[in-house]
Amino acid sequence: MNLKEYLQQEEFVVKCECGISLMNAKLQIINAELGMRLGRKVIHSMSSRIKSYESIVVKLKQKGLPEHAQAVEEYIYDVVGVRAVCTYTDDLYQIAEMLCAQKDMKLLKKKDYIKNPKKSGYRSMHLIFQVPISFEAEVQWIRVEVQLRTAAMDYWAGLDYQLQYKKENREAKNISRELKAYANAIEQIDSKVLELRRRIEAI
Amino acid sequence: MNLKEYLQQEEFVVKCECGISLMNAKLQIINAELGMRLGRKVIHSMSSRIKSYESIVVKLKQKGLPEHAQAVEEYIYDVVGVRAVCTYTDDLYQIAEMLCAQKDMKLLKKKDYIKNPKKSGYRSMHLIFQVPISFEAEVQWIRVEVQLRTAAMDYWAGLDYQLQYKKENREAKNISRELKAYANAIEQIDSKVLELRRRIEAI
Amino acid sequence: MNLKEYLQQEEFVVKCECGISLMNAKLQIINAELGMRLGRKVIHSMSSRIKSYESIVVKLKQKGLPEHAQAVEEYIYDVVGVRAVCTYTDDLYQIAEMLCAQKDMKLLKKKDYIKNPKKSGYRSMHLIFQVPISFEAEVQWIRVEVQLRTAAMDYWAGLDYQLQYKKENREAKNISRELKAYANAIEQIDSKVLELRRRIEAI
Amino acid sequence: MNLKEYLQQEEFVVKCECGISLMNAKLQIINAELGMRLGRKVIHSMSSRIKSYESIVVKLKQKGLPEHAQAVEEYIYDVVGVRAVCTYTDDLYQIAEMLCAQKDMKLLKKKDYIKNPKKSGYRSMHLIFQVPISFEAEVQWIRVEVQLRTAAMDYWAGLDYQLQYKKENREAKNISRELKAYANAIEQIDSKVLELRRRIEAI
Repeated sequence: MNLKEYLQQEEFVVKCECGISLMNAKLQIINAELGMRLGRKVIHSMSSRIKSYESIVVKLKQKGLPEHAQAVEEYIYDVVGVRAVCTYTDDLYQIAEMLCAQKDMKLLKKKDYIKNPKKSGYRSMHLIFQVPISFEAEVQWIRVEVQLRTAAMDYWAGLDYQLQYKKENREAKNISRELKAYANAIEQIDSKVLELRRRIEAI
Repeated sequence: MNLKEYLQQEEFVVKCECGISLMNAKLQIINAELGMRLGRKVIHSMSSRIKSYESIVVKLKQKGLPEHAQAVEEYIYDVVGVRAVCTYTDDLYQIAEMLCAQKDMKLLKKKDYIKNPKKSGYRSMHLIFQVPISFEAEVQWIRVEVQLRTAAMDYWAGLDYQLQYKKENREAKNISRELKAYANAIEQIDSKVLELRRRIEAI
Repeated sequence: MNLKEYLQQEEFVVKCECGISLMNAKLQIINAELGMRLGRKVIHSMSSRIKSYESIVVKLKQKGLPEHAQAVEEYIYDVVGVRAVCTYTDDLYQIAEMLCAQKDMKLLKKKDYIKNPKKSGYRSMHLIFQVPISFEAEVQWIRVEVQLRTAAMDYWAGLDYQLQYKKENREAKNISRELKAYANAIEQIDSKVLELRRRIEAI
Repeated sequence: MNLKEYLQQEEFVVKCECGISLMNAKLQIINAELGMRLGRKVIHSMSSRIKSYESIVVKLKQKGLPEHAQAVEEYIYDVVGVRAVCTYTDDLYQIAEMLCAQKDMKLLKKKDYIKNPKKSGYRSMHLIFQVPISFEAEVQWIRVEVQLRTAAMDYWAGLDYQLQYKKENREAKNISRELKAYANAIEQIDSKVLELRRRIEAI
């Protein structure tokens, strides 16, 4: 079976959707609890996706891996992805902590691209969990990547994403450089907004 | 704090909603897996509710219990309810079995009103689970009642429900008697439909 | 452009989804109004689909039409379909009437397979509307088929649907005959349930 | 009937929900069309609300109006509100234009607080429409306010909203002054992001 067929198998797709269902439920519960405790909306919007065949092929190439199902199973950790966009950076860390404290799933990897942004300027928190799906009378573990970011980081990432499939000419390089510089401005917005919120809360 | 206030507390409501979220996710996962394995839609529709103050008061009275929060916590098991309506009786038992096999929640009670209908003629499977909610840094256990029934049982139950708040005059008693007799006809539909499906599958 | 490409065009799919959105909104509004006026849940569940390429090809063949986009545009009226399942037959007729009274869409066809069941025993109300979509600065008209049926009719139709792709052997013919006979039993359920509801309301 | 009872009437609530349903459907259709035409996600998130009794009372007082249903009907235009958050300012104007071009609803008022921000620094586009609801065999017109804003404006508005019920001490006034100054920074983000997107598209 080739990679495309593997990714289109009904069983594979259903398992991925189950992983999304479960992580969505966990995020909703955290959102409900934090919203109540803090008296404000914590998660602004949520989305999820199963990585497309095309994107997986690009990623395998970048990593110098063959186009095989096994390579995906071993080395591609973000086939199933759930993204939650928050308003404030501290809420985002709170959610990360609450996810990591859950005993019914395992944290495989944590990449804090907020404290340590990528060279491009990209900022987000990436958490990769293994979640248990009770499937065909046995428990199977599915990897789910959770991306946590503020609306400002999401803004920036949207531009970066649009740029990524553009050809590598001079203007593209110029924009890329400007985007990187702009990542700092975005970071300052997040800090400023957080500072103002805290001062408002303290009144 | 009186019962009404207790039930309207934000924390209480949020916990109930979390219980619903979690059970919905579990049923969706089961539905996805069974749908794939059996090649047909298994759960026809799902709904959920938090029992209203008025209904809780009625139930407390029926049980001869005082109108206190503690009585609700100890004796009312269906404050949080999720209902899944299936087409076929065998699918319904399959779902019940898969729910009961899950190790991250506890079955408190199982009432099979399909094999042993209530005197009124009421048929449904009732499962009461305790589900864990990671809440304020500790795990709290919420009771959730799952009702599983076929569309035909749901039909019947809808009529029975409409009758229940009607005054106890002669016509109400007549209808109640007819409804009870009619429960058998409903049961025969479920059997017939199941038999036909199995014969179609065997072709 | 061949038929498959035509049906997969993004513009075609988006227009179909817009037609579904609009009809769903109309049914929700009717459901809200009727639910309030009658004091009971009127629409039990709703679903929608865009007819698959495979099903369209089957239908074109049955009608002796060529596999062309133009044939679909002229002769296939149920490419976009929305189904609402009700509990009671009278509610279903009420919904049909309220849909037909709306001045911002046009009724193209009405087939009452409840009063005049198909030979197979199939019962449902089919309404084909043209709905206006404000698209690219001009109004475009999309055909949407609305299927209205009771849960009992839906039950029956599910069995009939499972049978349709089975080979034409003797057992298939037997079941088909039994299903047809069984359609009468289903009709009697609808009548009985409606009669009981009316008597309960009259208490 | 006092104002609270008026706002809690089932008929009133159902009409408001119908208005929301209809406007949501319109925005989804516009989003689908624009998304297809422009090749990017246009509406980032949508939400809706029926204004609470408490907020209506505050608004009536601000306007020096009595606490009567009639005053609400005549002078409060945002009882039903739908909000769409976009990434880019030009998309937002495009949506506004497409809404205003629709012939089956009437624009009552348009307040462009983007070109002409409020004194506080608040920026958003407010459109008030009358939408037709086919209700009880006649068409009734419901007012629905649509708020269109970018994620950056939404950010800012969230802080401003948190401030509004705080007491009027010196710190509150300081923050209010800073927020106003900060509105300019937010505006520059929207311009910068838009400029970058256009340059990326032009590559």
